[in-house]
Order: sequence, then structure tokens, then C-alpha cells
Amino acid sequence: MTDNATLIAIDWGTSNLRASLLGHGGAILQTRSAAGGVMAVPNRQFAQVLQQLCGDWLQKRPLPMIASGMIGSRQGWVEAPYLDCPVGPAEAATQLTPVPFDAHRFFIAPGLRLQRADGGWDVMRGEETQLWGADLDADSVAVLPGTHSKWVRMGERDSIKDFRTFMTGELYGLLTKHSILGKLMQSSEEFALSAFIAGVRQGSIGHTQLASAIFATRTAGLMHELPATQLADFLSGILIGAEVAGALTEWSVDAPVVLVGDEALCQRYAKALELNGVASRSAPDGATTAGQWRLAHAAGLY
Amino acid sequence: MTDNATLIAIDWGTSNLRASLLGHGGAILQTRSAAGGVMAVPNRQFAQVLQQLCGDWLQKRPLPMIASGMIGSRQGWVEAPYLDCPVGPAEAATQLTPVPFDAHRFFIAPGLRLQRADGGWDVMRGEETQLWGADLDADSVAVLPGTHSKWVRMGERDSIKDFRTFMTGELYGLLTKHSILGKLMQSSEEFALSAFIAGVRQGSIGHTQLASAIFATRTAGLMHELPATQLADFLSGILIGAEVAGALTEWSVDAPVVLVGDEALCQRYAKALELNGVASRSAPDGATTAGQWRLAHAAGLY
Repeated sequence: MTDNATLIAIDWGTSNLRASLLGHGGAILQTRSAAGGVMAVPNRQFAQVLQQLCGDWLQKRPLPMIASGMIGSRQGWVEAPYLDCPVGPAEAATQLTPVPFDAHRFFIAPGLRLQRADGGWDVMRGEETQLWGADLDADSVAVLPGTHSKWVRMGERDSIKDFRTFMTGELYGLLTKHSILGKLMQSSEEFALSAFIAGVRQGSIGHTQLASAIFATRTAGLMHELPATQLADFLSGILIGAEVAGALTEWSVDAPVVLVGDEALCQRYAKALELNGVASRSAPDGATTAGQWRLAHAAGLY
Repeated sequence: MTDNATLIAIDWGTSNLRASLLGHGGAILQTRSAAGGVMAVPNRQFAQVLQQLCGDWLQKRPLPMIASGMIGSRQGWVEAPYLDCPVGPAEAATQLTPVPFDAHRFFIAPGLRLQRADGGWDVMRGEETQLWGADLDADSVAVLPGTHSKWVRMGERDSIKDFRTFMTGELYGLLTKHSILGKLMQSSEEFALSAFIAGVRQGSIGHTQLASAIFATRTAGLMHELPATQLADFLSGILIGAEVAGALTEWSVDAPVVLVGDEALCQRYAKALELNGVASRSAPDGATTAGQWRLAHAAGLY
């Protein structure tokens, strides 16, 4: 099954690590995950983690490897450069950063950055590669939910023209795990859609005062308006609703927003967009490996 | 010095615990603090913590004790009731909750709550007592910075008419301690005023997209726009700026806003208000014990 293995494509983010063995045409032969996100690897032992995850693939034959995501950040293995937007895949492929990893050919994709009118910067690592695998039209708006969700405007020839980062996923994690809001929560396997929708409404209205809007999670618990098992989804709704309503004050959207990423999370964003009057569609699965395959090809790695 | 001791007044919040021994007229004879905030006491061993902090005061003579703050919350010692706004000190004094603590007369002040037009609730514990010791005019707007900062509109006869909670202080703590923003920070004794002001400007402009505005803390570090020692104050500015700008979309302010609480923190809020075109003044020190003294008097505890 792995006889035609051509490339190892590694999606290495803040929270997750996933390696895929790709064959002819970028077909996924095998995929493995580990709880080895950049923030979870002690003492920067990235080589050990990677060896453990896919060392056996490399024993059979030498294979080129390409990684994208926070592994190229200052907290990662090696800080790969940031390219200034607009940037397309052809340019990014000329800027891969080689990383010493035994005798293997291992490369990290560059990040992207842009400077806003007020002088502030924004940065992206990993999402650009996903977008280059998602086959998007010029001028379309894509949203990539996650630890740090991104709103992106595409330009000509798959270039990335503009983007904005929201720390929505990280805020959700912090607030459920470490804040007083988590104290009233009970975990639940079931997604509480009605609580999520109520949260989206609160967050959409309250997006101008987010630090206040999230406090509704506590009062909904204190006043027994929601059961403890639904508070986490209520908070998720507030945060996503505030992100969507806030972003829509800035981003004009003419065609359906393209959602790229984890399916369950994209469904939450689709609902929040719908409640804010905006249509959306999901990108096909496998955008990250498709983008990595494309970059590696343009760089002549295989 | 403690011969005329009349009341023990306890300010017991989420993060801090402070006990004051009050004499004639509410004069503070002695004050002690401990790192025994409600979230920091394991297994609800509140009696032990209190015994340790001021057990010796009680050995000399029996003294009534009054506590306000999160100690009366569901995470606290006993959940004291919430009274519906508007509420003044005379009504609150009739609703103290007695708590068994050896043979002592120990009471917890009630909390306050209100329901907004959209059906959502807000709650307050402790700040009401501070306000009742701050001698405020009817219709004045007070801001009490802290873990959960409060914006408050006063009514007639020291009643509290309207308020809104912002989790600004807790967000600051979570983001500096546990998030990726903290990874680039270095602690510093010195307050970086210019970084704070830059943050206030970013947060004021970006208050509609707070989950995005805070990410500027990371990019300012990555792009070497600010030294690592100033990033925490920059983030503080973003969060406080967003709170102030967001609150001002809702709260009309005709007279100077009254700032009540920790002096250094009030100075930050004064600066953020000023940058948003709003004047402020500080309430005199000792508002909490003055309010507790007043409540205890109205309740006939001494």
C-alpha cells in the first residue's frame, strides 16, 4: 500500500500534529496523529516527536518531508520567515526553510504577514497552505476556524491578499479550563445546539463588549437558565457569534463564505454566519495535504 | 490600639482576602491580607483560612464579623442571595446571611442582580458594598476595575440602578499566564506607559473585534515593535481600551466617571477614559470598609 510513497506531509499546529504519507498525485496512503502540538512538546524535542510518529516510514526509503503550521514559529522548531502579502504558492515554494533532521530532506513552509493601515501586524502559519489546497476563486472570503481562526480574502492566482486573526479557539480553551466560567460547567458528549444558538445571538449583539458578553455564561448557570452540561456550547456560541458579527463590520461578503477546516467546527461557523445573514459552503476535505503537495511540487521536492 | 475594636470587616474576593479590624466610627485599627481568594482556597476550607488570618482578634473578645465579595457566591463559603436592582444599603442590611463559624457572629452581605432587556442576567458581589462606602451622587457612573470590572449607574439614596460586568482582569490573567501571548512576554517591575497607551488605542479602535485585537500583542513581539518586557502592559491597554470604548457605546456619561478600587489600576482606567474623551476622578480610599461599617450598622451588628 505504501510502495508508491512520494512525500510526507506534516500539519504541525499549536495543539495538534498530523503526518500523512502521500502517494501518486498526492493521494493519502496513511495518516497518523499525535498529541504533539507545538505548545505541548517539552524542551523543543521536536525531532524525537517526529521520529516517534513516522520514523518507520523513513526506514523503508528516503522521502522528502514538508511541514506547515506553528512548527515554523518562534515557539517552533526553526523560525521560518514571514512573506509579505499578497503571496501565492509559487512564491512561497521558493522560500521553504530546510531543517536539520538526521539525513532527511525536511522543509518548513514560510509564514505570511501583513501590516494594517494603523501600523499593526497580523501573521499566519499553516492556513496559507490549506488555502492553496482548497481551490478558491479570486476575491472569495474564506474562514478557517481553529485555535486562532482566520478570515482571508483571496486575490488573483491563489494569492492571499488580506487576512485577520481571531483568538477565538484559544479563548474558548482558556475560559473553559482556567476561568470562573468553567467552574459551573459539566462536560457533555452531546452538542447542545439550542444553547449554542442562544450564545451566537448574545455574542452577535454583544460583540462590541466581548469581555462582558462572555460573563453571560456564568449568569446563565447561576440563574439556572441553562443546565451545566450546556454552558460550554453556550460560551462557544458567544465567542463565535462575536467573531462573526465583529468581522462582518469590516469584511464585505458578496459570495458564500468558504469554510475550511474541521467539519464539526465549520458547522458551528456556518450556523453563526447564517444567524448573521451570511451564506457559506464548506471546502472539500484534505485541503492541507493538497496544499503541501502543491508546494512540494513547485519546490521540486519530488 | 485595638481596645475599642468593634467590627471585623472582611473583603473576600476571587483572588484576594483582606480583613480589617474597625474601631469607633469605622476607623481602621489594623488590616491583614492573605493569598486566600475564593478560587485559591482548596476544598472550601474557608473557616481554617479565616481562623488563621484573624483568630487572635477574636480571642481577646467576641466581635461581629461582616464579609462581602465572592465568598458569598456559589464557589464561596455559603451562597448568599441575590437582590434585584435597584437596591440600596438599607435593604441589603436586612438580608445578611449568617454563616456558622465556631461561636462567632459572622455574616455575608447579599449580592445584586439585574435582568437586561434581552433576558440575560448580570450579577455583582462585593462592589455594591464598596459603592455604599464611596459617597456617590445619584445618576453618577462609577467604574470598579478588577478581576471582573463593573460599570455602575447610581440611583436615589445610594441605590444601585444599573450595572455591567467585564471580565477584563480575568482575561488579562489568563492571557498572560496560559496563552500563546504570554510566551513572548518577560516580566518587568516598571510600568510601560507608552506601551499601555498604544494598547489602549488599539483596543479602543478594535473593541468590535476583541478576539482579534489582543493578537496584536503577539505580532508586536514577533515584529520587534515592542520589547518583551512591555508586552504585558500593551495587552493590558488593549483589554482596558476595548472595555472602555465598548462600554461608552452604551453608557452615557455626563459627569466625571468615579473610579473605585486599587489606585494603580484606577490610574490605568483614568488614562483609558481620557484617551476616549471622558473625564474621571478617584473615590477616596477605604470605600469597602466604609460600606461594610455602614451595612453592619444598619443591620444592628454593633
